[in-house]
Amino acid sequence: MKIAILGTGAVGTTIASRLVEIGHQVMIGSRSKTNEKAIEFVQKFDRNISNGTFEEAANFGDIIFNCIKGEFAVGALKSIEKIIDNKILIDVSIPVNTKNGMPFTLIPELCNTNSLGEEIQKNLPNTKVVKTLNTMWSTLMMTPSMLKDGDHTNFICGNDTEAKETVKILLKEIGWKEESIMDLGDITGSRGMESVLHLWWKIWGSTIGTFSIKVVN
Amino acid sequence: MKIAILGTGAVGTTIASRLVEIGHQVMIGSRSKTNEKAIEFVQKFDRNISNGTFEEAANFGDIIFNCIKGEFAVGALKSIEKIIDNKILIDVSIPVNTKNGMPFTLIPELCNTNSLGEEIQKNLPNTKVVKTLNTMWSTLMMTPSMLKDGDHTNFICGNDTEAKETVKILLKEIGWKEESIMDLGDITGSRGMESVLHLWWKIWGSTIGTFSIKVVN
Repeated sequence: MKIAILGTGAVGTTIASRLVEIGHQVMIGSRSKTNEKAIEFVQKFDRNISNGTFEEAANFGDIIFNCIKGEFAVGALKSIEKIIDNKILIDVSIPVNTKNGMPFTLIPELCNTNSLGEEIQKNLPNTKVVKTLNTMWSTLMMTPSMLKDGDHTNFICGNDTEAKETVKILLKEIGWKEESIMDLGDITGSRGMESVLHLWWKIWGSTIGTFSIKVVN
Repeated sequence: MKIAILGTGAVGTTIASRLVEIGHQVMIGSRSKTNEKAIEFVQKFDRNISNGTFEEAANFGDIIFNCIKGEFAVGALKSIEKIIDNKILIDVSIPVNTKNGMPFTLIPELCNTNSLGEEIQKNLPNTKVVKTLNTMWSTLMMTPSMLKDGDHTNFICGNDTEAKETVKILLKEIGWKEESIMDLGDITGSRGMESVLHLWWKIWGSTIGTFSIKVVN
């Protein structure tokens, strides 16, 4: 499948590496085609990966991953709205308020009564926004089996049921077990998924090594 | 031990029942001594439980549970500040914004950059506030073994290490295993613990029966 990754940070490149590894064709998108991080990154691979602008990547991908920093995501995505009309946008980002320093907090307008996932969906009503994978460290997103043989929970939510089913198939290719994927319903589920940031940060300070959350029932 | 429970809702009465069952002396506190729910509740027991005003209960208890509705908690506790000076206050409440209807949201001033646990501690600087148990259904708080033999996580946080150790002993009496109690550090951990509301609510809508969260590492 042709997959675009918007964003060249640790999350974007980790996702890109894994998708190439399991046989997909990937294009990394950034604001500028000459983004040095993106160029350097794609040179590590001998095939199936390239880089381009947000527009080029969005045109390339049948599925788009949003790994743009939370504070810039809506603006950047709005600028390519027509290109991603009717496409699936997998949103793995968190609207971290970088203005406040530590401890991490969320952007005030994008928490409690709203979320970044919802805000993207409101701004791009024809794009099929699916939120997933954002409650854990990026390496674990792409290698769930590194912790308890994958026996921990990855949440998913979104308004379009068919889009979620397509994303679930991709998640299973990545290594997620069917029983570890928990569907929280429509895109308002983003609110809970993004606010895990507060807990994640404190658990990170209290434990050693990789961790995740599991819903026990 | 003499324990006060402030609040006569489902959470307060569930906690009171269990504490009496394991041999503690309990006083339920409410705004009025003639609170009918409280009177009716204590009549179910043949010993070790009574009811009174917030003041009377706070005077009675060596440890105080705050089970007052989030929106009223700080005001009610401030009114008995001198009585609970230097006492341990176990805060199990969530600052639900009841004005917005469904879905549940948090009181705007008590989330993201603040929390009810922190707000209580700021308003009652000499009280030893310990936040715990608030991430699950009240029956599960008091009977952790009803789910996977207790193998799920109960978070705890607070500024006073000794107070937390006392509360951990009480949690173990209630039935929590040492390895299931996760200490998140100081009272700012409340922020993550209270914001679980958003996720809890969505998981509740997606699962059948009792559930809880477990930190896997």
